[in-house]
Amino acid sequence: MIQHAARVRVRYAETDAMGVVYYANYFVWFEVGRCELLRARGHAYRALESDGVMLPVIDARCEYRAPARYDDDLRIATVGTLLSPVRVEFRYSVTRAGDGATLASGRTLHAAVDRSGRPRRLPEAIQEVFE
Amino acid sequence: MIQHAARVRVRYAETDAMGVVYYANYFVWFEVGRCELLRARGHAYRALESDGVMLPVIDARCEYRAPARYDDDLRIATVGTLLSPVRVEFRYSVTRAGDGATLASGRTLHAAVDRSGRPRRLPEAIQEVFE
Amino acid sequence: MIQHAARVRVRYAETDAMGVVYYANYFVWFEVGRCELLRARGHAYRALESDGVMLPVIDARCEYRAPARYDDDLRIATVGTLLSPVRVEFRYSVTRAGDGATLASGRTLHAAVDRSGRPRRLPEAIQEVFE
Amino acid sequence: MIQHAARVRVRYAETDAMGVVYYANYFVWFEVGRCELLRARGHAYRALESDGVMLPVIDARCEYRAPARYDDDLRIATVGTLLSPVRVEFRYSVTRAGDGATLASGRTLHAAVDRSGRPRRLPEAIQEVFE
Repeated sequence: MIQHAARVRVRYAETDAMGVVYYANYFVWFEVGRCELLRARGHAYRALESDGVMLPVIDARCEYRAPARYDDDLRIATVGTLLSPVRVEFRYSVTRAGDGATLASGRTLHAAVDRSGRPRRLPEAIQEVFE
Repeated sequence: MIQHAARVRVRYAETDAMGVVYYANYFVWFEVGRCELLRARGHAYRALESDGVMLPVIDARCEYRAPARYDDDLRIATVGTLLSPVRVEFRYSVTRAGDGATLASGRTLHAAVDRSGRPRRLPEAIQEVFE
Repeated sequence: MIQHAARVRVRYAETDAMGVVYYANYFVWFEVGRCELLRARGHAYRALESDGVMLPVIDARCEYRAPARYDDDLRIATVGTLLSPVRVEFRYSVTRAGDGATLASGRTLHAAVDRSGRPRRLPEAIQEVFE
Repeated sequence: MIQHAARVRVRYAETDAMGVVYYANYFVWFEVGRCELLRARGHAYRALESDGVMLPVIDARCEYRAPARYDDDLRIATVGTLLSPVRVEFRYSVTRAGDGATLASGRTLHAAVDRSGRPRRLPEAIQEVFE
């Protein structure tokens, strides 16, 4: 299990007519969270892809507690767990940096596949990242 | 319980560098699905908002089975259920119109609130829509 | 010069905290406009790409006259012009179907390139589409 | 005339099936550029809106020279000019931080309006920001 916290500033593009962030955009921030986590552990996702390993999402969930608003400075705390050599899970907690309020929490499940979409075991070096 | 099927054509904007649709965009199609369901039952979501009723998402989930690709013609089958006067659930199934393949399924849970975000009972006329 | 009109319904995802559609999303509708234009002329952009011809945007512009709002039913009128065997221009006009109000107009310029990004002449069959 | 440079890391969500960033997303980065410029000068756009001043885009343009890719670290150099008490222009240059390559340049024109969309002069304090 590994963890890391990324920061995102809410863009106007991410808000909607309700005056708050549109719900699908939290999943984009989850992407930022897990990529920064891997980068912090020395394995940028871009490098993984160059090596022929892709991690498409096969399950995604988000629970919304309080709305994020334009210009909010957010903290995306991410925890990664290797479930098997071909399954990785990330859990996320989105908090507002200013007051520490928890806005949302979520989870994504990923399959390790090769360029043609077939399951492939994560390289040992990547598996060790999660220890 | 009510149901309806909407159609969406995959936009290039919705794809990503893996050559398939980016996972967060399924939640945008879920929005299309539930709005078209309400419209088909005579209650456009826009009219609900004009009447001071909002239905923000408080929980969202999607399971991905097979990737959607650019230009795919998709069917978003949506089922709506009134869980209580202040809770509505929608369930979705995304299939490719061409071959009927199921690409994803999901669920969103919504709270009925007023303009200031406080819980408010759905108007009777809307509750009856779900019968 | 060829022309066609596509229809789009404004999604909640496309609006922003100002209560209207976020300006970048008009460029997504322009994509819908030009793709439907090509499809109507018998040449889906997907097929072009399968044949190894890509049409990346090299210049894009939009002038905004009046805001589009959630659930608006819009008409994207698109005109395509072959400027040279390696340059295509599309011009767009976005009107609200209900009252015919012009909301925005724009233009995109495209280079014809092969899969590795090198300029390549459009196939004759595609060039003829623009006549 | 004022200037500032913001940084953005390309998200997977921003790429498309061509393997590069989808063209509309540059306009989202332009938003980041101009907001960070105003913040650096002591006037967050959020505060402007709280004071009842909105700056909707009335014209937007982008020229694309070379593609941005997933995970690229980009520099959005932004220059702001007060054209009149009710018109502001921003110009942008997007470069890749690694090699300094210019990827795109653009321009947005903004009208100063009040909450109901009527033209209103920018407050003196904001006008002075552009000097």
